[in-house]
Amino acid sequence: MTYGDKAAARLQQIAKASTTTEGVTRLPWTPEHRVASDEIAGWMQAAGLDVTRDAAGTLVGASPNPEGKPVLLIGSHQDSVPSGGAFDGIMGIAVGCLAAEALRHEIPKFPFAIEVLAFADEEGVRFPTALIGPRALAGTLDPGALEMTDTEGVSMRAAMASFGVEAAQSLGIARDPATVAGYLEAHIEQGPVLEAENLPVAAVSAICGISRFEVMVTGTTGHAGTVPMSGRQDALVAASRIIALVSDEAMATEVRATVGSISVGPGAVNAIPSRVRFTLEIRAASDATRVAFETGILGRAQEICAAAGCEIEAGRTYVQPATTCDPRLTEALEQAIRDHGIRPMTIPSGATHDASAMADLCPVSMLFVRCRGGVSHRPDEFASAEDLDVAITVLERAILRLARQG
Amino acid sequence: MTYGDKAAARLQQIAKASTTTEGVTRLPWTPEHRVASDEIAGWMQAAGLDVTRDAAGTLVGASPNPEGKPVLLIGSHQDSVPSGGAFDGIMGIAVGCLAAEALRHEIPKFPFAIEVLAFADEEGVRFPTALIGPRALAGTLDPGALEMTDTEGVSMRAAMASFGVEAAQSLGIARDPATVAGYLEAHIEQGPVLEAENLPVAAVSAICGISRFEVMVTGTTGHAGTVPMSGRQDALVAASRIIALVSDEAMATEVRATVGSISVGPGAVNAIPSRVRFTLEIRAASDATRVAFETGILGRAQEICAAAGCEIEAGRTYVQPATTCDPRLTEALEQAIRDHGIRPMTIPSGATHDASAMADLCPVSMLFVRCRGGVSHRPDEFASAEDLDVAITVLERAILRLARQG
Repeated sequence: MTYGDKAAARLQQIAKASTTTEGVTRLPWTPEHRVASDEIAGWMQAAGLDVTRDAAGTLVGASPNPEGKPVLLIGSHQDSVPSGGAFDGIMGIAVGCLAAEALRHEIPKFPFAIEVLAFADEEGVRFPTALIGPRALAGTLDPGALEMTDTEGVSMRAAMASFGVEAAQSLGIARDPATVAGYLEAHIEQGPVLEAENLPVAAVSAICGISRFEVMVTGTTGHAGTVPMSGRQDALVAASRIIALVSDEAMATEVRATVGSISVGPGAVNAIPSRVRFTLEIRAASDATRVAFETGILGRAQEICAAAGCEIEAGRTYVQPATTCDPRLTEALEQAIRDHGIRPMTIPSGATHDASAMADLCPVSMLFVRCRGGVSHRPDEFASAEDLDVAITVLERAILRLARQG
Repeated sequence: MTYGDKAAARLQQIAKASTTTEGVTRLPWTPEHRVASDEIAGWMQAAGLDVTRDAAGTLVGASPNPEGKPVLLIGSHQDSVPSGGAFDGIMGIAVGCLAAEALRHEIPKFPFAIEVLAFADEEGVRFPTALIGPRALAGTLDPGALEMTDTEGVSMRAAMASFGVEAAQSLGIARDPATVAGYLEAHIEQGPVLEAENLPVAAVSAICGISRFEVMVTGTTGHAGTVPMSGRQDALVAASRIIALVSDEAMATEVRATVGSISVGPGAVNAIPSRVRFTLEIRAASDATRVAFETGILGRAQEICAAAGCEIEAGRTYVQPATTCDPRLTEALEQAIRDHGIRPMTIPSGATHDASAMADLCPVSMLFVRCRGGVSHRPDEFASAEDLDVAITVLERAILRLARQG
């Protein structure tokens, strides 16, 4: 039985800690979270790690560290989206535990200790915030986050208390950067690139920054039968030209740009649209690229609207800078991939991860694992035992390489 | 005081028969309808017409017709949309009554009698049907329409009964075409063409036919961060290209084409749209032009979707053929316009009117009156007393011309 088979079996088992049978639903601070925690504690113990839970609810599996060496952190999150899959997040914990298990006899000789971290909440589904675990470690946790409530009106603080975690103390557990050697995270790619490239794994170059806008185009309504085409200020026609342009322009650059939602007023079959509201999300591994795209596309949108006799307003609703992965950590992953006889390739992560928040504490890098069809957040999310085995071996070898570097 | 001033004063007065003070709200079979009916009866009596109400609730003002001459009908509707204006519909009744009043001493010498018709319900706001008055006269009334209910659950039959009208009998009042000389209707243009052309009135060449489609574009959803632009089947991008094309193509033809409503799924800022549903409405004065446009645009839409990796389904939800205005009636209106020293111009009507349903009974034509800003169905809907005066004179002269033709 390979480590990959073992990982696959563990992931199949822990997927049962779910409120749904169709896919995995495991929200933080729930009975399913408790069951999963107990399983993960077993994985950690099997790797010779001492298990504790910190005040942000993160389950920590630590190699014995009597000398107080700096710590190399390996982690991901235990939670899923509703009716999600058996791999997103939890796979990184399984892979981290098995890499530590493979190295259990070497770790005491390393210039760093190892901790595997199982964060409680990365998906941000239950509360309108997320990443409490890594933010607590990085000292970037907003105390207001603890007062946010779920749809039942339960505050995060109360939910954590019911789980046996003293939330207030999570504000005091920031690590000293000097005590941390870095953070590594394995995660399914959630995209189709590795499958298309026929690669089981790849190192991540950066986690894309994100800009989100709400765009409002205003024209003039009128009767769809009586207003000649040439006399129209049709807000939906203008918005459509913008949406097509966003796609065309993004195709020619490194950004990913998406209009995900749109609404139109008055919204009748025989009324010319006068108000269109749509979201625009732009992601890029380089902040400069993202900002240049934004500026360019909003300028062009303005021109389109002016030509159509419409007005446009674009309000930024969210921004998150890109996280560049640490060259030394990424290089260690790439070398380990190459040593395994696999063509090394680095790709940017379009999605946010625990690593994004950990980057405020220490150097980070990530290892992406191929997932079938690029699918995630669905019951049919899948990574093969063979690819899991590659991921564990690559992580193990990367850690060995970092240990040799001292 | 000109007839135009008189019409303006009457319209201002009857606008008070409304449930709203901001604009006119006058739905059929209501107390406001009753008040308006009483006013209109007065207009008819002032023109020497005998007033009755038929079984479809149409108020009929008839010139004495002992010899049983064929009847030239002049009409429009008394009802408004909610918070609509003081001109749409009701103006045609006022203009008709005043033209009849101007001609009251000539009418007995005409080879036809005159009836002014005030239809109850053209807007179709209260019940999900409309045009009961003209349909009853044309013998095209669907008995099922009488059973339709308003939002309060009141059936049209019950609403009519409460107004003193025996709805069941409306199915037996179809006129014999041999007894009808034609139907003329004055109506505000509801569009900007006359204002742009600096013309007070114009004859109508045809009432546009209408096709409506519900179009569904299906692509593939995915994470907006993780799916590369080149790997997307974004249903909203494909739909946007179609919407822009609809506008561009319509601009180059005689059709008016509108996408009035759109919805998108999943509809999240960070999810690639996989389902887009939008309405497409196409209007043209020529059915052949409309059908050719439909075929062309749906074919191009198919190509756009194929290129985008999306599927498209377009279902027709409504069709209404065009009504060509009768050349003799239209010519009489045009000549009367020319005689008044105004440049004659015929324009198609993009909107449906009582005349559309009357065309099933007899030759029809319409006279459009300039309205400020092309605005209708709004409190600020407006036609000037001067333009009303032109409309009354033109209608009067057109009737005289038809009378001379015998």
